[in-house]
Amino acid sequence: MQPDRNSIRAAHALIAGDVRRTPVLDWDGLSLKLELLQLAGSFKPRGAFHRIRRAGAGAAGVIAASGGNHGAAVAAAAAKLGLPAEIFVPEIAAPAKRALIEGFGARLVVGGATYDEARAASELRAADTGALIVHAYDQAEVLDGQGTVALEWEEQAPGLTHLLIAVGGGGLIGGFCAWHLPASVTLVAVEPEGCPCLSLALQAGRPVPAPVGGIAADSLGARQAGALMFPLAARLHAAGRLVPVTVPDGAIREAQRRLWREARLVTEPGGAAALAALSAWAPSPAERMGARVGVLICGANTDPASVA
Amino acid sequence: MQPDRNSIRAAHALIAGDVRRTPVLDWDGLSLKLELLQLAGSFKPRGAFHRIRRAGAGAAGVIAASGGNHGAAVAAAAAKLGLPAEIFVPEIAAPAKRALIEGFGARLVVGGATYDEARAASELRAADTGALIVHAYDQAEVLDGQGTVALEWEEQAPGLTHLLIAVGGGGLIGGFCAWHLPASVTLVAVEPEGCPCLSLALQAGRPVPAPVGGIAADSLGARQAGALMFPLAARLHAAGRLVPVTVPDGAIREAQRRLWREARLVTEPGGAAALAALSAWAPSPAERMGARVGVLICGANTDPASVA
Repeated sequence: MQPDRNSIRAAHALIAGDVRRTPVLDWDGLSLKLELLQLAGSFKPRGAFHRIRRAGAGAAGVIAASGGNHGAAVAAAAAKLGLPAEIFVPEIAAPAKRALIEGFGARLVVGGATYDEARAASELRAADTGALIVHAYDQAEVLDGQGTVALEWEEQAPGLTHLLIAVGGGGLIGGFCAWHLPASVTLVAVEPEGCPCLSLALQAGRPVPAPVGGIAADSLGARQAGALMFPLAARLHAAGRLVPVTVPDGAIREAQRRLWREARLVTEPGGAAALAALSAWAPSPAERMGARVGVLICGANTDPASVA
Repeated sequence: MQPDRNSIRAAHALIAGDVRRTPVLDWDGLSLKLELLQLAGSFKPRGAFHRIRRAGAGAAGVIAASGGNHGAAVAAAAAKLGLPAEIFVPEIAAPAKRALIEGFGARLVVGGATYDEARAASELRAADTGALIVHAYDQAEVLDGQGTVALEWEEQAPGLTHLLIAVGGGGLIGGFCAWHLPASVTLVAVEPEGCPCLSLALQAGRPVPAPVGGIAADSLGARQAGALMFPLAARLHAAGRLVPVTVPDGAIREAQRRLWREARLVTEPGGAAALAALSAWAPSPAERMGARVGVLICGANTDPASVA
């Protein structure tokens, strides 16, 4: 079933006791949704809790493949729900993110050189154990869970006209597309130049393999846009209400530094990428008039020393 | 005139366009007021803007003595209002805080070995120049400005029964006392063991000189509690609605680490001190029943690497 306002409302009710309602900060004329203050340091627990609660997990627990935020979120959700968890990471997973995953009590398995290899290994393992697979972005329950950010933000800051959202595999922006399909909001879909899988998919008319690189690759580096989110994004794109923008790594670094300097927020590169698009995004003068812009700050899992 | 609900409401209206309405995060059963996300990284701009706007400053501009947050706040306010500013710092002022003050365009003057010397030097200078003195805590306009935190928080999270607030010279807690005098809220006044000026004043029945030391001294280290705030605090204390608590530096460090680990917030020691009191504060079992606790997170001006 395709995610929509009703399924997102139902998801919000189901996970209300599990995740934080993150606050919004009016800052320099922008509405910042501070999703970096979420449990486990990113928006990912929304989708993870919702997938686990909706699909149900037995004694075999849950399993996921991830180099970082999604793995930490699944581990955190499993810990809170009293379920065993196995998280498959690629060899390149950063030591800090491995520690975060293990800190929630999950079993960490190095499952290959790349994310794709780790995912393949996790699926083989799930076939053996019967654990519930929690995909990082391409499951309906995950899209609905991430869509709860859009629902909350609309309640907290009604009347925003443009929302800047960072894109990895598309779970988060997919949830936003589902929520805002019947509305008039424009979504600015922000990708690092090094991982442009949604931009390439929109050009090709379908998800296609994309390069994965640059400083935000550990959180936004998906090989290919999700199959479930793509039709939603394509529909909004055709209507002129989803604008893909790519940003260079230098602009992401500067956004991280600015968020620390001017708002005392520590962000990882993927968490600051949406703000980096403010200068790259070029709306028409007519569009700029009366625009009320929101920026989603979606992750903080980094060494805090990196933002100074 | 003694600060009260009316003067704080008036202050809030006067500075509404100057400062940020900082958000509140429901976290682990607590209401955290995220005042560390304020302009210039602490609550201090509220009092600074209000003092300057209310008292009026001419072409001679403004002047203040401070080793850190207050100086940065006065510098930020002056920059925004187009006024010249001189900030007198003691020799011990940290390089990072000096840079913050100069970053807002203020003239930085090293005014002696200690804060008291810097303050004396700033007052001599003000007599020469005619600049408006903005005191770090002991002016009615400053208490009213800091009291706007209490007003906002009550709007954002009605029904809190206990508020944990860090205390330096008493400007912030003085504003809270003024706001909550006619209410039933209990204030837990948190001081580091190394700078207990309010605890000593309450014991002595009047402000008395106190030691200044420990890891939070650069933001909470006042030699003596403010003359204006003391009668307000004494009155609430006599009514059992202000509870002084001191916390060791180790508990402050642990609170800083916990806020980073579990909420991705970077705090300076003085900004985390209130949370450190959660374990030290020992309400009666009857009092704990039905308590709804708020913790003010009041400053983030530190090297972010220090919280990891």
